[in-house]
Amino acid sequence: MNRGRRTVLVTGARGFVGAACLPLLAARGFEVVAVTSAEVPADSPGLKWQRCDLLDPATCAALIGTERPTHLLHLAWITTPGTFWSSPANLGWLAAGARLASEFYRSGGGRAVGLGSCAEYAIPDDAPCIEDVTPLGPATVYGKAKAAMHLAIQAAAQAHGKSYAWGRLFFPYGPGEAVGRFIPSVIRGLLARDPVACTHGLQVRDFIFVSDAAAACVALLESDRSAAYNIGSGTGVSLRQVAEALGRTLGGADLVRYGARQPPAFDPPRIIADVGRIGRDTGWAPRVGLEDGLARSVDAQRAGAAATHTQIANPAPGAAR
Amino acid sequence: MNRGRRTVLVTGARGFVGAACLPLLAARGFEVVAVTSAEVPADSPGLKWQRCDLLDPATCAALIGTERPTHLLHLAWITTPGTFWSSPANLGWLAAGARLASEFYRSGGGRAVGLGSCAEYAIPDDAPCIEDVTPLGPATVYGKAKAAMHLAIQAAAQAHGKSYAWGRLFFPYGPGEAVGRFIPSVIRGLLARDPVACTHGLQVRDFIFVSDAAAACVALLESDRSAAYNIGSGTGVSLRQVAEALGRTLGGADLVRYGARQPPAFDPPRIIADVGRIGRDTGWAPRVGLEDGLARSVDAQRAGAAATHTQIANPAPGAAR
Repeated sequence: MNRGRRTVLVTGARGFVGAACLPLLAARGFEVVAVTSAEVPADSPGLKWQRCDLLDPATCAALIGTERPTHLLHLAWITTPGTFWSSPANLGWLAAGARLASEFYRSGGGRAVGLGSCAEYAIPDDAPCIEDVTPLGPATVYGKAKAAMHLAIQAAAQAHGKSYAWGRLFFPYGPGEAVGRFIPSVIRGLLARDPVACTHGLQVRDFIFVSDAAAACVALLESDRSAAYNIGSGTGVSLRQVAEALGRTLGGADLVRYGARQPPAFDPPRIIADVGRIGRDTGWAPRVGLEDGLARSVDAQRAGAAATHTQIANPAPGAAR
Repeated sequence: MNRGRRTVLVTGARGFVGAACLPLLAARGFEVVAVTSAEVPADSPGLKWQRCDLLDPATCAALIGTERPTHLLHLAWITTPGTFWSSPANLGWLAAGARLASEFYRSGGGRAVGLGSCAEYAIPDDAPCIEDVTPLGPATVYGKAKAAMHLAIQAAAQAHGKSYAWGRLFFPYGPGEAVGRFIPSVIRGLLARDPVACTHGLQVRDFIFVSDAAAACVALLESDRSAAYNIGSGTGVSLRQVAEALGRTLGGADLVRYGARQPPAFDPPRIIADVGRIGRDTGWAPRVGLEDGLARSVDAQRAGAAATHTQIANPAPGAAR
């Protein structure tokens, strides 16, 4: 390995958060090997694409052997809206991730960051989630598999004497978000003057703009601390507040029909991140406020740029309309 | 699937606990498919052996597809004395186990039992470990991978709408225990009149006779409750007390040299199971007291029957001499 070479393997690189990480990694001087199971865009300076089925252990090991990454940013997971919460495919992604992390370190890699979810916590009704304080207690198949992956990446790092970080993502939104999710659904309805069927909308969620979430991933990759870190804004807003903000921008707030849909089975009243640890350990802080982020989402959706991704990196509980 | 057919796939079937489960399963009327990566003994009525590398996903899926087990007793794991605590191979076993559990349920299996370890707990210094009360906090690679496997089997059962149990084994001992571990080491030394190098010996552990541990696994397999269960005696004894009991039987207690070895890095002062839950839910209780169990261990070792296994199903922390 060349001294000073920094090559990062990014899985899920065409996903919602993954795509937002790529320019940030390039700006930090990483050589980026971007992995996707989908179609591969053209390479560009500092950015090489690899099409790879990570669920196939042999393919995955061959990729690591060829690229010899010094860093791993593992974002790939099943994220199919509507099914990822309870799909058995979560087990395949856990198995693939455990092998990937171990193979990465075995081949000389030094720093891995994996992406988990607020769904790993036993969500408290009235307090923010704090790493190592709020008990874990994943209610869903997805949350359990992500919590297992956290243990797997920890175990792999420990077995090889290397370091890791585990980001627990809260509710990412912004340009590129999948159409079926809450914010794009409301924007689409208001733009088209179509009714938007919502749940009661009183759920409080911690929304984090996608480029801020990506910057958090990159900050964790460049740190050397081994721990779990919440990635959120630290602030909760209700889905109604979000829809009302969009209504102020676009008009047609009365098109949003609260109570027209049943909430999903897993739908805690409040999900808010405490983000003290990531701030203290990496200096990262969110930069894009909600009004600004929503305006950018509206602009992107008006421009037709939104929702072209077949995968999103980390859909958030209760955020689908 | 024939109504009423009960076919159990037993992995790690030549291991320490696995071998003890086979006659109990046959006695309960199970058709047993016993899997091992080692050499395959001859089949017998109700017991069919399959040699299989569970670390190979395709082989494992083919086995499930052929045998269509209704029950799964998953005991296989890396157990190489001295290395299993920190080996990266734990990640491979996690990946294999996650796939196995998911494939088992997908193919119509209804009930899976996996074997974990007391090493999953953040072991309290002065209280027994209680499921869902004592926090998890595995210090070792092995403990982390086992805790991840618990989440994986839970997730697989939930995704397929089936049931599971997870046994957290404490300190199994008895005929067939690997030679390098504490009790066989002391017996061997006292029988040969050789000095036995031990740690300080003040560690208190919860020893469970191997046939009792096997009976607990079978009881969990026949239950329909989905939960984690401690498998132990509920009673702690120090390693010194064990050695002294053996000295009373065999003579030569002065051959045991306390303090001649450094304790391992992970060596809590007390590790004791609360076994209330398994008793309440299955009616299981340990039958073999320590004096009796040690006498049987001595008899087996005298007869040269001990320690012929290359794998043991679940070596226990601090039990190696």
